[in-house]
Amino acid sequence: MTEHHGSDRDLDALRRRLADFAAARDWQPFHTPKNLAAALSVEASELLEIFQWLTPEESTRVMADAGTAERVKDEVADVLAYLLQFCDVLGLDVLAALSDKIERNERRFPVAGARSNDRQGSPDRHSPE
Amino acid sequence: MTEHHGSDRDLDALRRRLADFAAARDWQPFHTPKNLAAALSVEASELLEIFQWLTPEESTRVMADAGTAERVKDEVADVLAYLLQFCDVLGLDVLAALSDKIERNERRFPVAGARSNDRQGSPDRHSPE
Amino acid sequence: MTEHHGSDRDLDALRRRLADFAAARDWQPFHTPKNLAAALSVEASELLEIFQWLTPEESTRVMADAGTAERVKDEVADVLAYLLQFCDVLGLDVLAALSDKIERNERRFPVAGARSNDRQGSPDRHSPE
Amino acid sequence: MTEHHGSDRDLDALRRRLADFAAARDWQPFHTPKNLAAALSVEASELLEIFQWLTPEESTRVMADAGTAERVKDEVADVLAYLLQFCDVLGLDVLAALSDKIERNERRFPVAGARSNDRQGSPDRHSPE
Repeated sequence: MTEHHGSDRDLDALRRRLADFAAARDWQPFHTPKNLAAALSVEASELLEIFQWLTPEESTRVMADAGTAERVKDEVADVLAYLLQFCDVLGLDVLAALSDKIERNERRFPVAGARSNDRQGSPDRHSPE
Repeated sequence: MTEHHGSDRDLDALRRRLADFAAARDWQPFHTPKNLAAALSVEASELLEIFQWLTPEESTRVMADAGTAERVKDEVADVLAYLLQFCDVLGLDVLAALSDKIERNERRFPVAGARSNDRQGSPDRHSPE
Repeated sequence: MTEHHGSDRDLDALRRRLADFAAARDWQPFHTPKNLAAALSVEASELLEIFQWLTPEESTRVMADAGTAERVKDEVADVLAYLLQFCDVLGLDVLAALSDKIERNERRFPVAGARSNDRQGSPDRHSPE
Repeated sequence: MTEHHGSDRDLDALRRRLADFAAARDWQPFHTPKNLAAALSVEASELLEIFQWLTPEESTRVMADAGTAERVKDEVADVLAYLLQFCDVLGLDVLAALSDKIERNERRFPVAGARSNDRQGSPDRHSPE
């Protein structure tokens, strides 16, 4: 693994650790794409739960509280874990998928055009989706 | 794989491209942690939507249909995009968060104990959460 | 309230109890439509969490376990609570909205046409959305 | 309001219309509790999507725009439709579940205690969950 950035924290190494972890516990039968997609959405909601009653300003300060900071880190880890496992069982390269998407969005939202848009009139358009 | 390092497809490079993309379009005011957490959960649900009526078996074959495969790739890209942007605005290292979480889960779900568990009796315990 | 079906369990009575409950605790400032929509989606995900690792067959038997049955009831109550509060703050009649939607779906999915559809080919079309 | 009883817009009548609708289209095999819970969470996220980039203030004005108002009504109808269908397949009385929950919350969040709480310190506690 040392040749791979010399780190056990790069994305591909984490993907392999997650696959080994599940295999060692015989969890693969539960890891259908459907179940992993459900688990991913559940974890993303647990992250949102931390923010649901906060004002926009309060939401920028969540890392100032040690307990909340731990919760946030825990939930982003879970989201990434299920995303990697989902991609693993379907043989998907998530980095390539994102790179392709950014390229499509660069064409879809040219900088000048994006600036001339009135956001009020198109609240769903102001961010890549 | 060292040549992959420095590529525009590694996670940190993608994070920077997303930040530049948002900055060039003046979207940062919308990118509060709360809004990005909401957007992340919305995208995770769009991924789940693809699977909602499928049987477990059908869910393993989604990449066989070209149109569905594109949709799946598009949604995993969106999930990763919002996850990276969320972590970026809060200064979080998502790879470190996941590495820490895997270590905690290795202690929490020791292999022998996990195998001796009766899954039926503890359906929520069989996977890291 | 007796004139309204003679019950404190009808939908409108529950809506008023929820509004009184929030008012008595000064929670209205937190109950923006955006926050209530986020809370609704978080609670719907907590319901889904109960099912995420279950097979379709297991999912039909969740009420057989007393503890799981309580969890399910608790989460459906939360979903309805936030749905009613969301509709309340926006002045929406949720029953009229659903009645209208069913009428639209009856035109959109005529019985004969629905039967002739091949579900495999259109997994997203087989249920009203 | 007794004339509302027996109307095709009360909750139980809508529940029956939804059950008949699904039966006429042979959709019951797809309507497992697990699938309906997934569909419910997907629809709740589609409602949230309308609000994801809005400020709290903007979120209070969504019904002023005719197109957005239609989208909101459509999504709340979908959420209620899947909630009723979920409860139907499991034989759950959602009104009784909510009534019980409100009673529990009245004990859990007594008015005086709720007022003395510092919301900043307990952002998750200020609303029934």
